[in-house]
Amino acid sequence: MPYVTVKMLEGRTEEQKKALVEKVTIAVSETTGASPEKVTIFIEEMPKNHYAQNGIRLSDQ
Amino acid sequence: MPYVTVKMLEGRTEEQKKALVEKVTIAVSETTGASPEKVTIFIEEMPKNHYAQNGIRLSDQ
Amino acid sequence: MPYVTVKMLEGRTEEQKKALVEKVTIAVSETTGASPEKVTIFIEEMPKNHYAQNGIRLSDQ
Amino acid sequence: MPYVTVKMLEGRTEEQKKALVEKVTIAVSETTGASPEKVTIFIEEMPKNHYAQNGIRLSDQ
Amino acid sequence: MPYVTVKMLEGRTEEQKKALVEKVTIAVSETTGASPEKVTIFIEEMPKNHYAQNGIRLSDQ
Amino acid sequence: MPYVTVKMLEGRTEEQKKALVEKVTIAVSETTGASPEKVTIFIEEMPKNHYAQNGIRLSDQ
Repeated sequence: MPYVTVKMLEGRTEEQKKALVEKVTIAVSETTGASPEKVTIFIEEMPKNHYAQNGIRLSDQ
Repeated sequence: MPYVTVKMLEGRTEEQKKALVEKVTIAVSETTGASPEKVTIFIEEMPKNHYAQNGIRLSDQ
Repeated sequence: MPYVTVKMLEGRTEEQKKALVEKVTIAVSETTGASPEKVTIFIEEMPKNHYAQNGIRLSDQ
Repeated sequence: MPYVTVKMLEGRTEEQKKALVEKVTIAVSETTGASPEKVTIFIEEMPKNHYAQNGIRLSDQ
Repeated sequence: MPYVTVKMLEGRTEEQKKALVEKVTIAVSETTGASPEKVTIFIEEMPKNHYAQNGIRLSDQ
Repeated sequence: MPYVTVKMLEGRTEEQKKALVEKVTIAVSETTGASPEKVTIFIEEMPKNHYAQNGIRLSDQ
């Protein structure tokens, strides 16, 4: 029942994403008591021109 | 004023998406009392490698 | 696998919310082909002072 | 610490997006008291076939 | 049509929130070309125990 | 830069939430290569009457 969304910049490899969902599922399961089958993970990627801090997009730095 | 987001895997046809927003708008309007013109729907699609349950991405099954 | 979020103002009754999730689940299932057991719905409520159009919050109108 | 998400239709230019994050950061900083370095902005774009009002997608109008 | 979500810690006053939606609406309208009536803003607040950086919740610092 | 949102039912203790953000931060950092200081986590809780599967809210089961 925990639903986890990981939002990050584009560019991670498939191996990194595969490891990410494995490790995050274990971390969530162990700390919340939910069984791993109940943990759902969504990955969302953003390009550098859609992300800004201090009023400046990463693509403009 | 209800804002509805439907998040699902890629791959539905345009006809399916067209019917989806029609039917969901009616369902929301009838049950909440909001007029259909006030119902906004967003569709979000995700690829199989960005969705995981039980620590395994759909693309890795 | 469709995940539906319905965001609306506070104030609907429990009966309305119960009917909402029933009807929306049917609408999503019939149009996407997903079985009803696969449809998840989240309701999110917002107070009038956290919602604005045209730069004016609903609580200030 | 304010995290701002701007969801809009595809099609704005890079110049518009650049100005958008600059101006919104200033507006958020001045009114919340957060320093500009603490303001994070995400832009999310949607295509016309994934956005509907009154049960009709923008792409079907 | 831009939909703006501002997520921030609890504690801003009603006057700050009122000014926030006014100023952000102007900033979004001027830079995207959308008329102010088309700009919708949602405010979402979070408590200190639901926000973490570097693995430490703000409430634990 | 990864931003993680964990959405779950109300009821976890402060100790569970504290451990959750610690463990998830480590899991995200190790698998994405982002330093822990760059990992932000938001916890969102929902009540049982705002969550449904198969058209039935958890509070109605």
